[in-house]
Amino acid sequence: MANVLALSAPSDWRPLDPQNTLYLELGSGRVVIELAPHHAPKHVANVKALVREGYFDGLAILRAQDNYVVQWGDPDAEKKETRRPIQRAQPTLKAEFSRPLQEMRFEPLTERDAYAPQVGFSEGFPAAADPSGGQGWLTHCYGMVGAGRDADADSGGGTELYAVIGHAPRHLDRNVTLVGRVVAGIERLSSLPRGTGALGFYERAAERVPIRAIRVAADLPENERTHLEILRTDSKTFAALVESRRHRSEAWFKFSSEHIDLCNVPLPVRPVPARDKNTPH
Amino acid sequence: MANVLALSAPSDWRPLDPQNTLYLELGSGRVVIELAPHHAPKHVANVKALVREGYFDGLAILRAQDNYVVQWGDPDAEKKETRRPIQRAQPTLKAEFSRPLQEMRFEPLTERDAYAPQVGFSEGFPAAADPSGGQGWLTHCYGMVGAGRDADADSGGGTELYAVIGHAPRHLDRNVTLVGRVVAGIERLSSLPRGTGALGFYERAAERVPIRAIRVAADLPENERTHLEILRTDSKTFAALVESRRHRSEAWFKFSSEHIDLCNVPLPVRPVPARDKNTPH
Repeated sequence: MANVLALSAPSDWRPLDPQNTLYLELGSGRVVIELAPHHAPKHVANVKALVREGYFDGLAILRAQDNYVVQWGDPDAEKKETRRPIQRAQPTLKAEFSRPLQEMRFEPLTERDAYAPQVGFSEGFPAAADPSGGQGWLTHCYGMVGAGRDADADSGGGTELYAVIGHAPRHLDRNVTLVGRVVAGIERLSSLPRGTGALGFYERAAERVPIRAIRVAADLPENERTHLEILRTDSKTFAALVESRRHRSEAWFKFSSEHIDLCNVPLPVRPVPARDKNTPH
Repeated sequence: MANVLALSAPSDWRPLDPQNTLYLELGSGRVVIELAPHHAPKHVANVKALVREGYFDGLAILRAQDNYVVQWGDPDAEKKETRRPIQRAQPTLKAEFSRPLQEMRFEPLTERDAYAPQVGFSEGFPAAADPSGGQGWLTHCYGMVGAGRDADADSGGGTELYAVIGHAPRHLDRNVTLVGRVVAGIERLSSLPRGTGALGFYERAAERVPIRAIRVAADLPENERTHLEILRTDSKTFAALVESRRHRSEAWFKFSSEHIDLCNVPLPVRPVPARDKNTPH
């Protein structure tokens, strides 16, 4: 992988858009989340509205279920008297599980998949498509962030968010609105102690992990931002990277399946090289 | 899942064989590993020999790479003067990456897979098969335990072991000898702090996680064992469980792919019910 990336051109990379980047600030440091406004425009706008009214500040990570998800939100969400009030944002939204494929950029892989007719990438996110049904959607790969909901499809809105920390739970695809992806700091979530309650919820309040704040990157001064760039999934370098992971040419490998699972394709992230550091973007 | 398991018969479950069960004892508690002697007889015998000569006692977890593996062994393995001596066990063994399919029990799934012509289960482990090549092998699903090796295929032997703690790295299939699976306590590995060195190795000795001991369950008195049983993958209950995970009938699900990925099939483990607790097995 390092060899392929060493040959990349600067134009193969795109900086994170600070208007669509969240910083989840924990005691252990920062988790950087790229939002997916193309795929879930209403949820992304609502999550940003929640963030900007300070909804998450002082709330907590409530759940860490092994090989599944870490989830955060309001511990008192079910208690009308003490729950965190929502000001200008919406408490719930109509689901954004999938969207018309014809309106969506999609670079398919050639691989077979148990869960979808086609899999590939869209705007830098892992995605799937059903050409006969005319729909496309984001997929629950490691690090993807979704908006938890209750039994009703339209009962989510972004007040409860989760990140995937295990083998891709692809059965959740088209069942939850995915709003983005952790692009840095996932280990601050994936290495949390697992909750011992049902579904990995922390049983005692003291076990919960406090959220200092969530911020939109654009709302922080330049020098407080984490300057990252992402390899474009529509670049030739990315295509070469996928091919290098299908066919493992390193001497260590004795067998190569010549295929890859969507969620095993790396989506490289790196610090913005020094040349760009003082260029606002 | 609970509904399906509630209908299971006692005969759908098999107890762990104490002669093929390891206890990895950490400061945080016990990790229980079921060995796979049908698939890697020489490696399993050698790992047990290493365990019985106390090879691992006082060694450490050396590596925790996010979304990949946790690995343990001798920090001084490369230092001839100070490395842990091997007594009766073998330092390396011929690879056991796959075996003749005709000698192997195999219950195939119907699903498509990017990595293998067929996938399914063998002796309770996730497995794959290539009928045209006549080979079968275990697969790198979450929790699987393998014997690390150097560049040479025959350079492993069990002195360095790893467990999968992320999205199944199936490109490792047929490249490493898998020796077993974590059946309890995986969270004691998966929630470890990630190493900050290359490949997730801990950079400072103080970061390493000490191994108090590894023991073969049979070598402990009955009352110090962890009595677990595993749902048989050749049982009707298991088939019903797989079907219930393909077709999600819970009201929460709005869409069901009707398919499942091999590594998303749960392999249920439970404490041996009280009725059996005093029956040696």
